[in-house]
Amino acid sequence: MDKVAIAGYGITKFTKDDSKIESVLLNSSRNLFRNSPNLTQKDIDAVLVSSNNNSKYLSAILSEISGIQPKIAHTVESLCNSGTNSIVAGYSYIASGLADCVLVSGAERYDSPGQILEWDKFRGEFKHPIFWASIFSKAYKQKYSIKDEDLALVSVKNHKQSINNPNALSQKEYSISDVLNSKKLTDDLRLLDCSRPCTGGASILLTSEEVCKNFTDSPVWITGIGQKTTSASFTKNLTFDNMESTKNAAIRALQMSKHSVADVDVMELHDAFSVCEPMALDSLGMTQEGKGMDMVKEVYETENTKINPRGGIIGSGHPLGATGIAQTIEITQQLQSVAGKRQVDNAKIGLVHNMSAASTSSTVLVLEN
Amino acid sequence: MDKVAIAGYGITKFTKDDSKIESVLLNSSRNLFRNSPNLTQKDIDAVLVSSNNNSKYLSAILSEISGIQPKIAHTVESLCNSGTNSIVAGYSYIASGLADCVLVSGAERYDSPGQILEWDKFRGEFKHPIFWASIFSKAYKQKYSIKDEDLALVSVKNHKQSINNPNALSQKEYSISDVLNSKKLTDDLRLLDCSRPCTGGASILLTSEEVCKNFTDSPVWITGIGQKTTSASFTKNLTFDNMESTKNAAIRALQMSKHSVADVDVMELHDAFSVCEPMALDSLGMTQEGKGMDMVKEVYETENTKINPRGGIIGSGHPLGATGIAQTIEITQQLQSVAGKRQVDNAKIGLVHNMSAASTSSTVLVLEN
Repeated sequence: MDKVAIAGYGITKFTKDDSKIESVLLNSSRNLFRNSPNLTQKDIDAVLVSSNNNSKYLSAILSEISGIQPKIAHTVESLCNSGTNSIVAGYSYIASGLADCVLVSGAERYDSPGQILEWDKFRGEFKHPIFWASIFSKAYKQKYSIKDEDLALVSVKNHKQSINNPNALSQKEYSISDVLNSKKLTDDLRLLDCSRPCTGGASILLTSEEVCKNFTDSPVWITGIGQKTTSASFTKNLTFDNMESTKNAAIRALQMSKHSVADVDVMELHDAFSVCEPMALDSLGMTQEGKGMDMVKEVYETENTKINPRGGIIGSGHPLGATGIAQTIEITQQLQSVAGKRQVDNAKIGLVHNMSAASTSSTVLVLEN
Repeated sequence: MDKVAIAGYGITKFTKDDSKIESVLLNSSRNLFRNSPNLTQKDIDAVLVSSNNNSKYLSAILSEISGIQPKIAHTVESLCNSGTNSIVAGYSYIASGLADCVLVSGAERYDSPGQILEWDKFRGEFKHPIFWASIFSKAYKQKYSIKDEDLALVSVKNHKQSINNPNALSQKEYSISDVLNSKKLTDDLRLLDCSRPCTGGASILLTSEEVCKNFTDSPVWITGIGQKTTSASFTKNLTFDNMESTKNAAIRALQMSKHSVADVDVMELHDAFSVCEPMALDSLGMTQEGKGMDMVKEVYETENTKINPRGGIIGSGHPLGATGIAQTIEITQQLQSVAGKRQVDNAKIGLVHNMSAASTSSTVLVLEN
């Protein structure tokens, strides 16, 4: 299999703006071109758009307004996991020999229709994923004797880390008591335990090994890919205290990369809600089952930013189609040692974990420089 | 590059039914499983859905209701060209080594939002692609001295051929005068010159060379792929009397397959409107520029069904996300010599041409047995 590089990236601020989806796509792509002075429109063989927006033909529209005439162009959608799915699609176009240079651009508006899963709509007050997150929180707390104030630390940590991310939606620190005293949404979930939908875009340039040197002298390589879909419905999960699809995807990605979890220096995890971060750590195999919260505490107390250095989804905001790409950009910057105040020392191997809808599907990527 | 086979397929009738999109997806997938007695859910590594429907997470939903737990699962959208785009995506997952067995399922409802291109909305009375088709017809007729009654033959031929396609929306023959006397939509377009939106599904099983023998003893191979997007807007076309993206895609696909157009025994062309068939013949290089209508007349008069044997889009109906997959199934059946009354003698090499939005993007596939 050919090697596939991340050879460039561009991102927008994550905001509550009412920008058109086409503008969001254009803005992050334009930033990618600005960051890649040797890249021209003619170099690009494929334009993949990651979005839950209802507009059609967005890949052709982005191509037109960017002056690109690609061979391959289509949208990829798989709810919150769209961004990493589109990166894997781009990877496969290159590894198969159909393309040398793929622009993957994710964008979403704050009012994305992907925030309500019509197939798996919960009864009662909440149309939003808040309901499954609440059940996850209850189950995880019960099984592992974890308290609300423990989970609140995830939000405290990630909001704190997002202050060093100039593109993050949140730019404010919160204390444990701020989280606990924020609006109570359910018995097990408060407002500050939740990520927030927002408007934002993130673009990445994937290339073959052969052409990557034209665009960057510090490529980052995608060395592991694992994906799994277990169902489309929260209620089909076997348990509510771990992430089956994440476990499966992590094993595959690490096998492919020939690394163990112990080798991972820095990671972006899908913390759509506080409980997701320790559950993801458990399910990825970073800790023993139920010990994820201990790991969160340890990194917080030692001021190590290796878990969600950009502030995760809770701190950065959650523009669904852009999230997986923004996570991958963060790990790329970490491995290139250009993450500024967010930089993790000596980061050589990074991991991205993204998922949709109560972890009914997951993607895990391993990146290396 | 690994070889990629078409190792199975299933299709639904194309109708005006009000079926839910999930049912349409399930029905063609179920037919694929019925046609593939050795295939089990566990064999499938990836589930790709091709659709313009606004519902999210359809690949996970189809997986769940079909009992599949794939690695890779996402929707592919690129308007009318979604189906062939999703086949190329499936091809690349296999050729890259990320999957051995991919279920590609296209589905659309008669009321698909993909029928109105918001980005390129025409002024005046028509929101529908009728407007660009009318301009294409006027330009093509003027440039090559072609009359309305000439173009009407495309509709006559394809409606006639669809009678031997049990899944086609149209099951009725029409005469030249029926077409000319059908409702006049614009100066250059009558109702029977137009394909009709409908509800329908089509699924295809793509596999690596290694596993295809588990599922079929008559695989058909995808030996050529060409794709091109020139813009998202009709008005950006360089001319209105040929299809630039189709020309480009055809050259690439034939080069990859190491064949010339003269080798092609049977083809499915994107005849969304009468004029598209002769224009596609010109742009694919099947004839000299402007001679496409002569080729249509010749095959009609000699009762050769090599052009759009299933009745094309005009005869079969146009469920956008399913169309490219239905075209590919037709050519597969032709190369397997199982096309019944539609069978073209001694068909060894087939071609699929699909496109979106006034040919602003095109896909060409070459298939061989």
